[in-house]
Amino acid sequence: MRALRDAIGSGRLAPGTRLPPYRTLAADLGIARNTAGNAYAELVEEGWLTARQGSGTRVAARPEPLDTGRARAPVRRTWRRPAHDLMPSSPDASAFPRTAWTASVRRALAAAPHDAFGVGDPRGRIELRTALAEYLARARGVRTTPERIVVCSGFAHGLRLLCSLLRGTIAVEAYGLDFHREIIAGAGLRTHPLTVDERGARIDELPATRAAAVLLTPAHQFPTGGPLHHRRRAAVVNWAGSTGGLVIEDDYDGEFRYDREPVGAVQGLDPERVVHLGSVSKSLSPAVRLGWMVLPGRLVDDVLAAKGPREMWSGVVEQLTLADFIARGSYDRHLRRMRRIYRHRRDRLAATLARRAPHIRVSGVAAGLHAVLELPPGTEEAALRAARRQGLALDGLAAYRHPDSTMPALDGLVIGYGTPPEHAFANALDALCLALPDAPAPTPDPGPRP
Amino acid sequence: MRALRDAIGSGRLAPGTRLPPYRTLAADLGIARNTAGNAYAELVEEGWLTARQGSGTRVAARPEPLDTGRARAPVRRTWRRPAHDLMPSSPDASAFPRTAWTASVRRALAAAPHDAFGVGDPRGRIELRTALAEYLARARGVRTTPERIVVCSGFAHGLRLLCSLLRGTIAVEAYGLDFHREIIAGAGLRTHPLTVDERGARIDELPATRAAAVLLTPAHQFPTGGPLHHRRRAAVVNWAGSTGGLVIEDDYDGEFRYDREPVGAVQGLDPERVVHLGSVSKSLSPAVRLGWMVLPGRLVDDVLAAKGPREMWSGVVEQLTLADFIARGSYDRHLRRMRRIYRHRRDRLAATLARRAPHIRVSGVAAGLHAVLELPPGTEEAALRAARRQGLALDGLAAYRHPDSTMPALDGLVIGYGTPPEHAFANALDALCLALPDAPAPTPDPGPRP
Repeated sequence: MRALRDAIGSGRLAPGTRLPPYRTLAADLGIARNTAGNAYAELVEEGWLTARQGSGTRVAARPEPLDTGRARAPVRRTWRRPAHDLMPSSPDASAFPRTAWTASVRRALAAAPHDAFGVGDPRGRIELRTALAEYLARARGVRTTPERIVVCSGFAHGLRLLCSLLRGTIAVEAYGLDFHREIIAGAGLRTHPLTVDERGARIDELPATRAAAVLLTPAHQFPTGGPLHHRRRAAVVNWAGSTGGLVIEDDYDGEFRYDREPVGAVQGLDPERVVHLGSVSKSLSPAVRLGWMVLPGRLVDDVLAAKGPREMWSGVVEQLTLADFIARGSYDRHLRRMRRIYRHRRDRLAATLARRAPHIRVSGVAAGLHAVLELPPGTEEAALRAARRQGLALDGLAAYRHPDSTMPALDGLVIGYGTPPEHAFANALDALCLALPDAPAPTPDPGPRP
Repeated sequence: MRALRDAIGSGRLAPGTRLPPYRTLAADLGIARNTAGNAYAELVEEGWLTARQGSGTRVAARPEPLDTGRARAPVRRTWRRPAHDLMPSSPDASAFPRTAWTASVRRALAAAPHDAFGVGDPRGRIELRTALAEYLARARGVRTTPERIVVCSGFAHGLRLLCSLLRGTIAVEAYGLDFHREIIAGAGLRTHPLTVDERGARIDELPATRAAAVLLTPAHQFPTGGPLHHRRRAAVVNWAGSTGGLVIEDDYDGEFRYDREPVGAVQGLDPERVVHLGSVSKSLSPAVRLGWMVLPGRLVDDVLAAKGPREMWSGVVEQLTLADFIARGSYDRHLRRMRRIYRHRRDRLAATLARRAPHIRVSGVAAGLHAVLELPPGTEEAALRAARRQGLALDGLAAYRHPDSTMPALDGLVIGYGTPPEHAFANALDALCLALPDAPAPTPDPGPRP
């Protein structure tokens, strides 16, 4: 993207120049097609390129003027918000519980002992760890004590800390966040993909990987959407027990299950073999940078050694605020409210598709902040392009696929129905329906289209 | 420490066993003497060891019972607070401006746009960067714009991000924080020490190091206490201009100068060659995890690429709160108040020493949160042991020395006079005076001691 901006800004690429198809570009550069496609889409958004069906992608007639400051100026400022945002993984930012949070801040600041404002314990404040131990036991079936919880700034921070203690290979789900795989690779570890099916990750593939650890999303496989089957939950804990391996449980949206009570955390099956990682990024806001690691006793000192001798990441006011917010029941109230909102949105998504695109199946359990729309094989990229033309930001399953996976590719759109504010949801759904592929023509009896 | 705890807990080291002198242990293990000494002191504090003058360090008669949980349990829980804390680098935790901070939180939460609670921009909130640009220009002579500021979680985070962009060697001051050298080494870079004298770091040694960057504390050399001489300020900027090197300015306590107006930041001399790093750790509290990087334009994109595509460290509520706190003048009011308190403490320290230990010189400029007490050569370790016997936590200069430095060793105690709460300061000073070495016997005319 930077190279294209520079080339256009400097005039090396003249207005009207036709760029190669993004698949060709991707092949030339050895990058994922999705990456190249997204880069083009963003440069279109930024005004550098134009894309019109039939005429391909071209350099825009009048690019935005380049910042003429020295060297590479921060051109990202020109990034514009998409018209409709259905990117997964974000809760509705407009639903942040400001009033209750403010009340908790006030109480927390008034009640804090003086030493709270000194150098912080890297475990995290005891008030927060106590509240978390109680909450996680009650809501997620986690078995722990405040001494075995270490506060961190979010899932990624916790994963980084764990990776610094591990060597060799970490098994991951064949579909998952590229960002998590990058953290693992950045720590000098290899990743090995496990096939994902409707029962979650294939644990039977785990022994052959000789992995030191496995990273799973047991409550709600991300992004494909199934929960880990109960026999596989038992199997992964058995694997850990017999090999000394570690299970890393990413409980990213465990609170949001709409059809029945949430399935408890795998950690409850064996607290000495499973690290349970959670955060408030989905339950409250990614703007509150607090997460937690529920650790086997033997790992606590090593994690703290990796984290550093003093707290350098999590602010104390925020920690004490969350502790109060949980202890006063505000967290439970907020989760109940959001569960209602998100369930309602999922229902609207399903009902809209049943009416306007009955050939598209919504897969995965009724949980979390996203759904997967299954697409006919080979149609995902076209659907993503159509979505971009509608000003719709969303991801396809291909963006989450492990590059080494040998399982058959899944075509689908990942719809983050939690992301838009309430008033924008209907328009986003409308744009989505316009982007979906038509129903295949019924070949045996080509009657009139509905 | 862990090995000793295990050996004592398991009975391998019987009660009463005499341990080798810590100098011997340090030589055997190839670690700094100070590290070994501190480990012994902490194990004494924790109850594993006893130290008595004349009888050395021995295994305590009844060690605290070991946690019998599986594997290594978190024994650090047994760490106890020292009776008197004069460790440098911490502000008085009891002086945190709770009322004004609470008011800023309330205003910030009420005024925040909805999207503040979505995924965060890794630059940091524009409200905070705008407030910082204005404040730093006014208070520190920093020349920048909000676009060239990147928010981080503190100095260490900023240094890590910069190190990830550099290769080769970073020149550092021969006396400085070991922790900063570890961050640099952890990024695969070498450090090269520059001699420190009463005019700060010897910039004339810089060209021979062929360093890619130099890390300096120009306003108040840490820990020795002098400001960087104005000719050296010019010299380091010239070095950067002629070699393409980068100057990393650690402005850790630039706001606290008691004898005259603060010296402006070196960054003001050449914003394209100097990265200015600051935080609220000293000015407000290390419990507020906010720092800032003021960057040359050409580095902004690279720093953001290293930081990651979304904000994962700094909480938005805290960012917006600090923005309000600065914009409303609360930050200036707090700094004025703390400047009075700390100046008063420094005066008390100087007056107490003039009365009770007139042979000890307080060196460095009147600034910041710490002072150095110069000691006769070879007496630092004995003074530190005496301090520990008084239950006094403080550091000697040896703890800050670069292991490769060839400059003559400086003996001295680093006194963090900002750390204790107001009511505990007199007792801490008293304990300090008891720990200081006696005046050398006046050899020519051995008259009566005062």
